[in-house]
Amino acid sequence: MAGSPSSLLAAAASSSCAAISSRLPRGAPAAASIPSPSRHSCPPLRASPARRHQSRVVASAAPTMQPPAESKVSTVVDVDLGDRSYPIYIGAGLLDEPDLLQRHVHGKRVLVVTNTTVAPLYLEKVTWALTHNNPNVSVESVILPDGEKYKDMDTLMKVFDKAIETRLDRRCTFVALGGGVIGDMCGFAAAAFLRGVNFIQIPTTLMAQVDSSVGGKTGINHPLGKNLIGAFYQPQCVLIDTNTLNTLPDRELASGIAEVVKYGLIRDAPFFEWQEKNMSALLAREPSALAYAIKRSCENKAEVVAQDEKESGLRATLNLGHTFGHAIETGTGYGAWLHGEAVAAGTVMATDMSHRLGWIDESIKKRVVDILEQAKLPITPPESMTVEKFKSIMAVDKKVADGLLRLILLKGPLGSCVFTGEYDRKALDETLHAFCNN
Amino acid sequence: MAGSPSSLLAAAASSSCAAISSRLPRGAPAAASIPSPSRHSCPPLRASPARRHQSRVVASAAPTMQPPAESKVSTVVDVDLGDRSYPIYIGAGLLDEPDLLQRHVHGKRVLVVTNTTVAPLYLEKVTWALTHNNPNVSVESVILPDGEKYKDMDTLMKVFDKAIETRLDRRCTFVALGGGVIGDMCGFAAAAFLRGVNFIQIPTTLMAQVDSSVGGKTGINHPLGKNLIGAFYQPQCVLIDTNTLNTLPDRELASGIAEVVKYGLIRDAPFFEWQEKNMSALLAREPSALAYAIKRSCENKAEVVAQDEKESGLRATLNLGHTFGHAIETGTGYGAWLHGEAVAAGTVMATDMSHRLGWIDESIKKRVVDILEQAKLPITPPESMTVEKFKSIMAVDKKVADGLLRLILLKGPLGSCVFTGEYDRKALDETLHAFCNN
Repeated sequence: MAGSPSSLLAAAASSSCAAISSRLPRGAPAAASIPSPSRHSCPPLRASPARRHQSRVVASAAPTMQPPAESKVSTVVDVDLGDRSYPIYIGAGLLDEPDLLQRHVHGKRVLVVTNTTVAPLYLEKVTWALTHNNPNVSVESVILPDGEKYKDMDTLMKVFDKAIETRLDRRCTFVALGGGVIGDMCGFAAAAFLRGVNFIQIPTTLMAQVDSSVGGKTGINHPLGKNLIGAFYQPQCVLIDTNTLNTLPDRELASGIAEVVKYGLIRDAPFFEWQEKNMSALLAREPSALAYAIKRSCENKAEVVAQDEKESGLRATLNLGHTFGHAIETGTGYGAWLHGEAVAAGTVMATDMSHRLGWIDESIKKRVVDILEQAKLPITPPESMTVEKFKSIMAVDKKVADGLLRLILLKGPLGSCVFTGEYDRKALDETLHAFCNN
Repeated sequence: MAGSPSSLLAAAASSSCAAISSRLPRGAPAAASIPSPSRHSCPPLRASPARRHQSRVVASAAPTMQPPAESKVSTVVDVDLGDRSYPIYIGAGLLDEPDLLQRHVHGKRVLVVTNTTVAPLYLEKVTWALTHNNPNVSVESVILPDGEKYKDMDTLMKVFDKAIETRLDRRCTFVALGGGVIGDMCGFAAAAFLRGVNFIQIPTTLMAQVDSSVGGKTGINHPLGKNLIGAFYQPQCVLIDTNTLNTLPDRELASGIAEVVKYGLIRDAPFFEWQEKNMSALLAREPSALAYAIKRSCENKAEVVAQDEKESGLRATLNLGHTFGHAIETGTGYGAWLHGEAVAAGTVMATDMSHRLGWIDESIKKRVVDILEQAKLPITPPESMTVEKFKSIMAVDKKVADGLLRLILLKGPLGSCVFTGEYDRKALDETLHAFCNN
């Protein structure tokens, strides 16, 4: 049972420069953060139905506020969601610009949600940015333990406790300062506190900057599965200070790269090719390479989210490798593997399965393994993940519908994928047996 | 500091028959559930600005499905919220009509959330209604302990545990079978499970039928305050089988009447006058009187919610007496007083304060005390509630904005109120001291 044509959601939907809304703000050098040898170039528009459809529905350039003239913001990417639209600011040193952050704070009270690792590095700076020349605003903070294993209801309650004990009201703002775990938890807390208050994302890991801080997916884990409890809830803005990556451990950097690779594979072949040429620059933390990877990732995510905010179809393609990856994270105990590490191994498994189905060439499979190996990411699941363990955990995945597990699989040329439940079960079994012990 | 004219949100906004959308379905007798001597009659439309505004924005008659010709549904009230619109079915014996319930079930799996009191009475009947001639649907249930004191995160987790252990997916439907606590918890669980699944309200208490099941407010309590964690999340439908009131204890019946009285006071003077004449019929559970009180309450609530789903202003007026009432519930320990009992005492306090401010006549104050006494509801808070206890709990009320406590107070003729933070603090102090020990 091959995927039907109608399920081929993202094929031929690779990046369209005309349809996105990154902007160079006034005062920023024209190519400040874009490495010139490998600057992303748009392929010529093809007049396929999918392309036409995409060009029509990817909304762009929502009227969000421009940073001030002297700003260090090198890029603004708009996430266009009607009255829930918001800007993503990307640049080096943005936390040194109080105006940028302050304009998005609602009310007079702020609660910064962060963790024990990030607080010593950036809490003081963020508090300064919130209050500098702004005596009306007071800042509270709650410092959570660090790690995926604390992304649970007990830890979430600490955020509510702090918010209620310090008598925050509906006109307050929550600020997520940290990686994906902090962003997901702070966002869900903001969604549920008093049935919804404003929040701002300040992601400090590459993973959060290229993926989890954008698009409004928030939530916590359940012992039986990842992100099973949460909300779709959009922030007021995302503020990415690329300088925060200077303190990021190598393993965390690589974890973020797994999501960068994903965007290339599912919808942006030129971006994947750029990564193949620039992986050593990314691993060496060359600022212009990192800034470009972040910008292009945010643009891809913003395009997808603008078309399908609540994941009725297209948005699911952002989860390439994640069904296998979530099973690894759940099965090994949250935190043993970083999210991007699990996604990397999961991406190799999804690619392997796509190849077994005859949906992609051998060459794509090889390039996926090569680029993830170059990024020093795992390309197989841990030994403890048996076939049965994978199957039982994947059965509670959010993409199961009426009992049928739907997967994101590559199909067609590089940069094309499908989200489908119509695949030969034998291929899934073969992939699981190829990568796992029984 | 008297309330400014602009804060007079709900004045002159008493019920408008033209603007609501209750319908008599095909086959139902024209006045099956409306007591003829006291049938609600519309006052003539006045061309005041407030009236014109209301007539324009109260949307009505959304195209929802009609019950079948042989249906026992005596009334359908539509809650008009664009793509989140839904019908409220009101009638005796609706749980004997499988079609009505089944048409609103999405997917093949249902989770009924109920409690230890309601399950023995109605779980079997609801399961039958969901599955009769409908072999594709399977029903799970989770039976929670009964009572406001269990409206907490630990109990909520039992719903998630059951949903995940039984491998429900995004295409499932949650059904809330019980009173307000069950409805609020099941609704919040539905909002957060897999970031949102469909749900249906089957309220079995008068309180839930006239108020809490309608309008999409869901949530749980925090030890420091009522309903501080939750979501605005609308059901697919509300199914009110008035026969379920046959098993309701007298004290619970009176609790629901407190909210019925509220609608009259804040926006529907003719309804209040009807209640004054028909309170003994309500307390004697005369079916036609109960059905009319439920219908008119749902209509009032639907009108308000359609204008202000997320409580940016007008909707707050539905909380007359609730700020004082929530303080009583929190201060005495959840469950010591029923919600409506606390609201009744709170309503008397809000009325007293309105009178001290010179905003209402003495006669209204007297009528409020009289009608609540007739309903055997408390008209003073419990002795344990001191002035300081009230003040410290009210400081974390959701209606505090930038540190200012806003209250719903009566102002003007019967059926008129304001939601405002602009009142003389002395009046609040005087009311607290008049009703409480220091």
